[in-house]
Amino acid sequence: MSWQLELEHLPDLARGAALLGSGGGGDPYVGRLMVERALRQGARVTVWDLEEVPDEALVVPTAMMGAPTVMVEKIPAGGEGVHALRALERHLGREATATMPIECGGINSTMPLVVAARTGKPVVDADGMGRAFPELQMETFHVFGVPGSPMAIANEHGDVTLVTAHDNWAMEWLARGITVRMGGASLIAEYAMEGATVKRVSIPGTLSLGIRLGRAIREARERHRDPIEGLAEALRPSGYGPPRVLFDGKVEDVLRRTTEGFVRGSARIRPFTSGPPLAISFQNEHLIAEVEGEVLAVVPDLICILEAESGEPITTEGLRYGQRVRVIAITPPEIMRTRAALEVFGPRAFGLAHDYGAVAEVA
Amino acid sequence: MSWQLELEHLPDLARGAALLGSGGGGDPYVGRLMVERALRQGARVTVWDLEEVPDEALVVPTAMMGAPTVMVEKIPAGGEGVHALRALERHLGREATATMPIECGGINSTMPLVVAARTGKPVVDADGMGRAFPELQMETFHVFGVPGSPMAIANEHGDVTLVTAHDNWAMEWLARGITVRMGGASLIAEYAMEGATVKRVSIPGTLSLGIRLGRAIREARERHRDPIEGLAEALRPSGYGPPRVLFDGKVEDVLRRTTEGFVRGSARIRPFTSGPPLAISFQNEHLIAEVEGEVLAVVPDLICILEAESGEPITTEGLRYGQRVRVIAITPPEIMRTRAALEVFGPRAFGLAHDYGAVAEVA
Repeated sequence: MSWQLELEHLPDLARGAALLGSGGGGDPYVGRLMVERALRQGARVTVWDLEEVPDEALVVPTAMMGAPTVMVEKIPAGGEGVHALRALERHLGREATATMPIECGGINSTMPLVVAARTGKPVVDADGMGRAFPELQMETFHVFGVPGSPMAIANEHGDVTLVTAHDNWAMEWLARGITVRMGGASLIAEYAMEGATVKRVSIPGTLSLGIRLGRAIREARERHRDPIEGLAEALRPSGYGPPRVLFDGKVEDVLRRTTEGFVRGSARIRPFTSGPPLAISFQNEHLIAEVEGEVLAVVPDLICILEAESGEPITTEGLRYGQRVRVIAITPPEIMRTRAALEVFGPRAFGLAHDYGAVAEVA
Repeated sequence: MSWQLELEHLPDLARGAALLGSGGGGDPYVGRLMVERALRQGARVTVWDLEEVPDEALVVPTAMMGAPTVMVEKIPAGGEGVHALRALERHLGREATATMPIECGGINSTMPLVVAARTGKPVVDADGMGRAFPELQMETFHVFGVPGSPMAIANEHGDVTLVTAHDNWAMEWLARGITVRMGGASLIAEYAMEGATVKRVSIPGTLSLGIRLGRAIREARERHRDPIEGLAEALRPSGYGPPRVLFDGKVEDVLRRTTEGFVRGSARIRPFTSGPPLAISFQNEHLIAEVEGEVLAVVPDLICILEAESGEPITTEGLRYGQRVRVIAITPPEIMRTRAALEVFGPRAFGLAHDYGAVAEVA
């Protein structure tokens, strides 16, 4: 069933997408403001459920690419995503029927909405990451063999590059270099697919999941209740596991550097009571949470840091000394935990010496 | 008048193009072998004089891009230049009538010949640098306001990127980043122009100039004569000044690093007799020659290092401790010494604190 995106969805979506960002993906606040402005100016955004996408439709996902620390400071003028989409349409010689997110976590939950508002194209309620991931091949689209290129990359100066790569790793490598040269952030259109393919290779319902998660956190706060129960309820229909509380404590140390187009670093969280601290490592997103070498959660499980009082998700660029936080982990849907999927975005794809299965069983 | 490129032209062309490379541009030897193979396999290469290019023709220059140190080691398979040309043709929706060099110095004197041999397209006897320069906007094409993009960049894996930039500096910046990600060297097609434009913005006769210069050096060696006189004769019809001998001596020190897609460094040459050494700085090409702070020659003058015995040009990547050399300078044609041209590839465009005029008058 198709539905209209409304202004009142946006604060919840931004909050929920920040949670799904697993610390990365860029704070969705900027994208939220861009969509808000468009809706206030009279634009309409129609959201299509995945199953209603016509088989012969051409769906072209749009997104922002770059290090989250840069994405939230180098704010798009608004037209870059449309510029990328139009360039790819011209290259393909075919107009896109709809756009959709490549990732439902972080700023990219909202970027396709900006494109949808400006072009009048519907946006599909689905994505290819089920969270946020740092690299372009880390997509269920890729897991199922969809070529990501030709893709288009645009910046605020009107520069556009089209990349046609022999595989999706080469596409990521070249696009990352271009994005770095564009100042660390760009708008992209990639993984152009027929509707029949989209239905086979996507994670359904993740845009509305973001809205539900954000609403659950807000309502828990309004009612002075723990958000965990509401989050569990919001996650269930989308096939995610319930949130597991890993740790409560105070941020003691954050090491963060923006390098080669990524934010890399780690954080240490000291428990409120005595005991060893929790260590979290990240590449844009949180990758692994450990206490004294014991792995509590590892990618592709979502590792999320919430403000202890408000339940608001904290992204890595917002992480500060002294914050009181709760760390939770969420197991993603089955489509993201197959052997093929784990090869693309499991622990070893990030250079970690752990197998997801072993850790997930422990958890 | 059009003419056929013959096998016996190639050793002279490679030698002459190495001279025109002013130390950079990449050793033309690799390109020479590629053209030789094509000619031996029966390919024909027709060369068009600049004035006979039809006004309505589409001329698409082709070249190799990258640091010379990498270009001479990362040898193209042969099809990359054609791949870049075809990608740009598809993007423009129009077939190229002919190709041509963007630079007549170094390896790019021969790369368009490989494309011509493989596609059957003629090659225009002209270029946009009159020598070699390190960056894509350092073209008389650019001086006269021709946009270099859309351009295509191809590598040996079949990856292609198309860059459309808001100006030629942005094109260089993005293309350089892509070339670095492609391993430091790529094949490009850029500055697509109508024939009428090519005739207005190019330096005529520089392909045949390369052949004449190479022949002059060879014949001088065969006759045990100084090549300077023959070089002067070869240069005259193309509007270049006669070679000026700057220095004779022995290479004492070479500092060379490949960084950000360029080779940067310096060389020191000790005179055979007593006296202070000559210092040469380079960014791919030799930029300035000085003795104790006194500038003997500066870009866009060609500063060339020849083997003392044989007169063979030495490129920066071939420069070695102990070589006995003669350093000469050549003033390029008028079209390369206008105020507008010097803004693009004069000393200050390379960050040197000198004005070309002052130095040239001294020289």
